[in-house]
Amino acid sequence: MKTPEEIIIEKEKAALTKWCKGDTSGFIEIRSEEITYFDPYLENRLDGSDAFKKYMKSINGTFSIFRFELLNPIVQIYGNIGVLTFNFVSYSKDDIITSKWNGTEVYRKFEDDWKIIHSHWSRTNTEAK
Amino acid sequence: MKTPEEIIIEKEKAALTKWCKGDTSGFIEIRSEEITYFDPYLENRLDGSDAFKKYMKSINGTFSIFRFELLNPIVQIYGNIGVLTFNFVSYSKDDIITSKWNGTEVYRKFEDDWKIIHSHWSRTNTEAK
Repeated sequence: MKTPEEIIIEKEKAALTKWCKGDTSGFIEIRSEEITYFDPYLENRLDGSDAFKKYMKSINGTFSIFRFELLNPIVQIYGNIGVLTFNFVSYSKDDIITSKWNGTEVYRKFEDDWKIIHSHWSRTNTEAK
Repeated sequence: MKTPEEIIIEKEKAALTKWCKGDTSGFIEIRSEEITYFDPYLENRLDGSDAFKKYMKSINGTFSIFRFELLNPIVQIYGNIGVLTFNFVSYSKDDIITSKWNGTEVYRKFEDDWKIIHSHWSRTNTEAK
């Protein structure tokens, strides 16, 4: 039987595999009603399932990534809550790094499935010390 | 009696009030053993209480902020876990915005107190659409 950690990392990788083709439906499917969402393209946090879905649909098909790595994932598990954090690196066809991200995905276990209740994406190491 | 939401927001504001004077001790005090931490100055996530404390000590006294606002806080509560998200805006003496941040602070209730188990800070709206 898979551990919660394994299930959560698999879900994230499956959604990201779609994402790389510009397909945002993977994240739409695993969002919860109460999702809150930050990324660096937005002026404000998105609150709730509808706002998140509308945003994901608006960017669907507008980008693609050749391949990605999900690095150093850890899942901090507290009962029905799992806090997944990792670095995400995207590559071009020539294997050049095109972007580096810090990712936080907070999952909650509902009756029989884990869904995202909070998501925070930001670029890695963009500020000089 | 205060709600968990109120307690968590008060803790964050107290730590940020010290932070504005360049005093990082407020966040050191409310960190947990298992804290994971992202900010845009780092190349990698910091894992654990010691790494976080060392980093906070290294930047103590190196900055100051005239005043701040913590905007639109929400706390998503799931038993002993509270996911606080907000926008943080810092101002100069002349009341000019000096920086805008997206903040995620995941708190966990230990025996009698809430501490941070994950923290993710990033700049707001740094990427063009």
